[in-house]
This record gives sequence, structure tokens and C-alpha cells, in this order.
Amino acid sequence: MPITVSVKTTERIDMVDITRFVQQEVLKAGVTDGLCVVYVPHTTAGVTINEGADPAVCSDMIAKLKELVPPNDGYRHMEGNSDSHIKTSLMGSSVTVLVEGGRLALGAWQKIFYCEFDGPRSRKFFVKAFNC
Amino acid sequence: MPITVSVKTTERIDMVDITRFVQQEVLKAGVTDGLCVVYVPHTTAGVTINEGADPAVCSDMIAKLKELVPPNDGYRHMEGNSDSHIKTSLMGSSVTVLVEGGRLALGAWQKIFYCEFDGPRSRKFFVKAFNC
Amino acid sequence: MPITVSVKTTERIDMVDITRFVQQEVLKAGVTDGLCVVYVPHTTAGVTINEGADPAVCSDMIAKLKELVPPNDGYRHMEGNSDSHIKTSLMGSSVTVLVEGGRLALGAWQKIFYCEFDGPRSRKFFVKAFNC
Repeated sequence: MPITVSVKTTERIDMVDITRFVQQEVLKAGVTDGLCVVYVPHTTAGVTINEGADPAVCSDMIAKLKELVPPNDGYRHMEGNSDSHIKTSLMGSSVTVLVEGGRLALGAWQKIFYCEFDGPRSRKFFVKAFNC
Repeated sequence: MPITVSVKTTERIDMVDITRFVQQEVLKAGVTDGLCVVYVPHTTAGVTINEGADPAVCSDMIAKLKELVPPNDGYRHMEGNSDSHIKTSLMGSSVTVLVEGGRLALGAWQKIFYCEFDGPRSRKFFVKAFNC
Repeated sequence: MPITVSVKTTERIDMVDITRFVQQEVLKAGVTDGLCVVYVPHTTAGVTINEGADPAVCSDMIAKLKELVPPNDGYRHMEGNSDSHIKTSLMGSSVTVLVEGGRLALGAWQKIFYCEFDGPRSRKFFVKAFNC
């Protein structure tokens, strides 16, 4: 099993700041200078990097994704969550961040957000950090 | 030359499950625990990870991409495939997956899809797997 | 500090071909066969890979992104750049490219584009290349 972290989401569409959990795994792994990949093994949840200072950035992003890809839009997939699958591919299933001196080399305003598109649910993600 | 795999697409817009070909290259490379990058060297084809159980998920995704980025929409690029280029950037040119015990650490429902946006064509993709 | 490259953008929304700067860093790092990650540490700028031969491809992409995510669209974030944040997540904060024989293994038409969504500004990006 890869290094696996659990995350709980509380809305159907939700962006959860997971930066500190990712940072923790980088430290535990003893990685000092290299890369860190965060991978989401679900098909209705993704991951992105964006501004974490003002929560309105996430709520604006969620509102726009809902507008571009509404929940009921004549989809053929019968589980009622085609929009969640589509939003997942728009955001992507992984992010890659540099590690320097044991720290994620994020920009001043960047946070890593778990993107739930079919919650609320108990979810997970993988962290793979390595020196290189 | 990187490890290169050929793929044939059969529609102008098409999502082809390439998971087994990627897995095969990981095994051939003898990679046990690390990462695998799938890279598409074209500008009108991309790659994404999503649900592979119900083909309706892909057809819903294709329908939505066609709606958001229609083929003829007053584009300036004269080759008639600006929509294909735009869809490619929305999906992305690569995916990164963890490898554990020689297997791609995909979620239960995840498959890797080659996303053709200007087919049908003979295409290719690169696979780079390594222990880390 | 990771290897950092500066880039100037000249429009609010702008796609700048940074391929040669990335290639230069790969050479400087002495990486022959492996991977190269280009990472943008900003929250209103991203990076994508697409066609570099005809500038109309980029202008069509920019026009479509403006249409899908217009600048003023009832956003709650008060800085007036919610659209820039959303466009950033649609494009992504990093790209990963294979390196072979010291060269980026890009397709014939592929270039790496820095995607400015809240310029013009002085920006930067990180390059991490390694043998693997």
C-alpha cells in the first residue's frame, strides 16, 4: 500500500485544504530535496493547487464548476454523478510539488486542495515523496 | 527514444482505455515501487484518469467537452481544430500514477484514458516508470 | 531555493513560450535521461503544453477561457481576480516532460506555455530535472 491519508468531506462539492497532511508525510518520509506527488484514487474527486487565504476563491471556483458542468444535464450515466466525473478530469487526479529542505516548495499563497465532487464522503489520497 | 506505445483512435473525439498497455510497460521496465508517467506528445490529444466501468461516463464527458468547446466557434486558427487544442489543455498532456509491487496503484474504478480530440488517427504515447 | 526562472508577461491573460528556458535548465543540470517538472508557484498563473507553430492557437485558447470564465461574473472574492484563479486550476500548476539524451522529449509541435491570468506581471517558475 502506498502512504495513504484519509480525508472527510462535508458537502457534495467541497474543497479541503490538505497541505499540512501532505507536508507531514514528506517529513515522515525523510525527504529533503526532491518531489512530492499527491494522488487521488477516486473518480469523482480530484486535487488542485490554488489560493488558500480567502475561502471565497474556493467558493467562486465551485460555483463556476457547477455552472459549467451542472449536476443534471441530460447525462447517460445512470448513477447521477456524471458531472462529478467530468469535474474530476477538469481538475486532475494528481499534483506534483517540489520539496526543498524538507518543505513543500509552494508559493506564498498556494495550498493543496482535495476536490470532492460527489460527497460528503470518507475519502483518501496517496502521497509519494522522494529525493531526486 | 522513450518507451513508446501506439494507439489507434476511431472517432474525431474518442477516449481509449490504455491502462493495460501502461501496466505492461511498467512490468517490462521491472519497476516495483515508484512512479509511472504517461505522456502524450501531440497537441490535439491528451490523457486523463476516470471511471472505466460504465462507457456512459466517457460519452458524457465527451458530450460536455463538445458543448463547452464546440468545433466551430469563430476561432482564428485556420486548421479547423482549435477546439481540439483547447480540449487537450483542459485534460492535460500527462498523468502520473504510483507503482506498488509492480502494479499501477489505481483506485478500484480508475482507468487511464487516451483522449483523442482530432481523430481518427494513429497516435502514440510515452511511458516512463522508475523506482523511487 | 529550487532552480528558479523569471518571466515577464505583457497582458492580463497571456501565454508565453518558455520551452527554451526549460531546456536550458535541463542542460545546466546535466540531466540526460529522466524527467523534468515545470512548476508555477503562483495562484493566478499556470502552465500548459500545446501547439507553438501558429500563435492563433494560443489566442483561441485565451478567447475560450475568457468566454467560459469571464472576469466579472458575480464572484465573491473581492480582489477582482477570481476568474484568474479558476483558469489557473483548469490549466494546472505544473507539467511533467520526459528527458531523453539531454533534450525535452516534446512532440514535434509541442511547446511549454506559461499561462498568465492576472498580468501583466513579473513572474517565476521552478524547474526540477533529474535522471531516473
